[in-house]
Amino acid sequence: MKSQNRRQFLKISGLSVAAAIATAGCSGAANQSQNSAPNPDSPPIPSGKKNINRLKFGLASYTTRKLSLDQTIKIAQRTRLKYLALKDFHLPMDSSAEQCAAVAQKVKDAGLVLYGGGVIYMKTQAEVNRAFDYAQAAGMDTIIGVPGHDLLGLVEQKVKKYNIKVAIHNHGPGDKLYPTPASAYEKIKHLDSRLGLCIDIGHTARAGQNPVEDALKFADRLHDVHIKDVTAAAPNGQTLELGRGVIDIPQFLRALLKINYSNRVSFEYEKDADEPLPGLAESVGYARGVLTVI
Amino acid sequence: MKSQNRRQFLKISGLSVAAAIATAGCSGAANQSQNSAPNPDSPPIPSGKKNINRLKFGLASYTTRKLSLDQTIKIAQRTRLKYLALKDFHLPMDSSAEQCAAVAQKVKDAGLVLYGGGVIYMKTQAEVNRAFDYAQAAGMDTIIGVPGHDLLGLVEQKVKKYNIKVAIHNHGPGDKLYPTPASAYEKIKHLDSRLGLCIDIGHTARAGQNPVEDALKFADRLHDVHIKDVTAAAPNGQTLELGRGVIDIPQFLRALLKINYSNRVSFEYEKDADEPLPGLAESVGYARGVLTVI
Repeated sequence: MKSQNRRQFLKISGLSVAAAIATAGCSGAANQSQNSAPNPDSPPIPSGKKNINRLKFGLASYTTRKLSLDQTIKIAQRTRLKYLALKDFHLPMDSSAEQCAAVAQKVKDAGLVLYGGGVIYMKTQAEVNRAFDYAQAAGMDTIIGVPGHDLLGLVEQKVKKYNIKVAIHNHGPGDKLYPTPASAYEKIKHLDSRLGLCIDIGHTARAGQNPVEDALKFADRLHDVHIKDVTAAAPNGQTLELGRGVIDIPQFLRALLKINYSNRVSFEYEKDADEPLPGLAESVGYARGVLTVI
Repeated sequence: MKSQNRRQFLKISGLSVAAAIATAGCSGAANQSQNSAPNPDSPPIPSGKKNINRLKFGLASYTTRKLSLDQTIKIAQRTRLKYLALKDFHLPMDSSAEQCAAVAQKVKDAGLVLYGGGVIYMKTQAEVNRAFDYAQAAGMDTIIGVPGHDLLGLVEQKVKKYNIKVAIHNHGPGDKLYPTPASAYEKIKHLDSRLGLCIDIGHTARAGQNPVEDALKFADRLHDVHIKDVTAAAPNGQTLELGRGVIDIPQFLRALLKINYSNRVSFEYEKDADEPLPGLAESVGYARGVLTVI
């Protein structure tokens, strides 16, 4: 017992330096540096933290739709969400290439990664063309999008030409194009593998589907995730803080670990549009807490 | 596999009603109602939520020392921290009995429980007398306190007379009276069992002690907990959001479950005094996330 006490204490003190570095600033890289300093005298990672860096958490900026880009960046830094997907509120679809590049630079300067844009609706060929030019100019690797069914052939050509992934976003029971992940998968499974899904777990549950099963089933085409919780697994389900609703978040995160998911898991916290930070922070804390012990 | 899918889905949908109730308002009772509606058709609790209501989370109002009582109450409601321990910023020590009762009523009307006051320093007999009158007038069941060593006899008399518990708070390496939980335990272990400890896990770690071991060792006298995290298990450790520091929070919460701890676990988030809500919310989310899967 005595030696176990000692080992546990060393386990704690061994992390001091790495944690002090992680705390020193709010840079987006902080969440990656926390466990990076191995100490030969003690195990470098406390019992619970073994999975904490295995998922890339990000922010879908629909969360901050009533706030500015600068406020969005501050919120991503505050919650250590390194990966950013911008909604058009923060980078309008008719932005010039120069404007896209300037926003990309601002995000980079803040220590964050502008990995995606969306949700981007594409109803015409012109909108498909514009979406890819926009994403390329901003250096995004993924378009979280909703292309018309008749445009999927063009989208596939663009994916090959630009080498930009398209993650089709399911929007629940009211969505005529892609109500569920399965409905999107059916449409793209024979196309280039860079066409895939952004599973929105809230809308998936609202459509009566199980996000855990869908993540496992469509793992080969899972290009992005919108993580959230809902009050009910029914069309009238409302979004709320992670852990307060009906979605089995631990099982969902376990599924992502099981498939060695390496793309982003972005928080889309839709409640409290005027002041999303507290609920977003609670949600991020919840996911990180779960992740430390699964 | 098919039937397992179905069972998992039922598990999700079965909670809809209870969760909708829990979401309807911000009342402090919400966090207790979430799993209270058993559904004969499906297990009432998702895989991870079995321990979520086994600990009573509260707020130590040193967290909101720069904010008003009204703001403190709103923050406790927003983060679903039902139990409140007020620092003198929010209920001055020289308050009249009527003032104490009015604050108690306001807290009760907000759906919260005013369980304690503190940290209250008691350096003289008069300060001991005042602390007990104050706590009694406010209906508190616990004084989180720092009585002078020479006053412990008087404190024990008062504990017996008022039936109010005293939880001695350890304040780390710089504290001459009670630097560690062990130093406090030594002083009270032969006194009435209503004298006990408020283990502050941040100051415990700063003093080079292991909060997990101390919770187990002093379980019989654990009357309150201040939960937090620190950047280093050393005197210069700074407090920060739960999960970002060096304390093994999952192991600590496991220890509390192991000893069937039934008193309060209060968040004392000392960082960001001007705007504590985001970091507090992240901390609360983290603890709840951990608790759902341990």
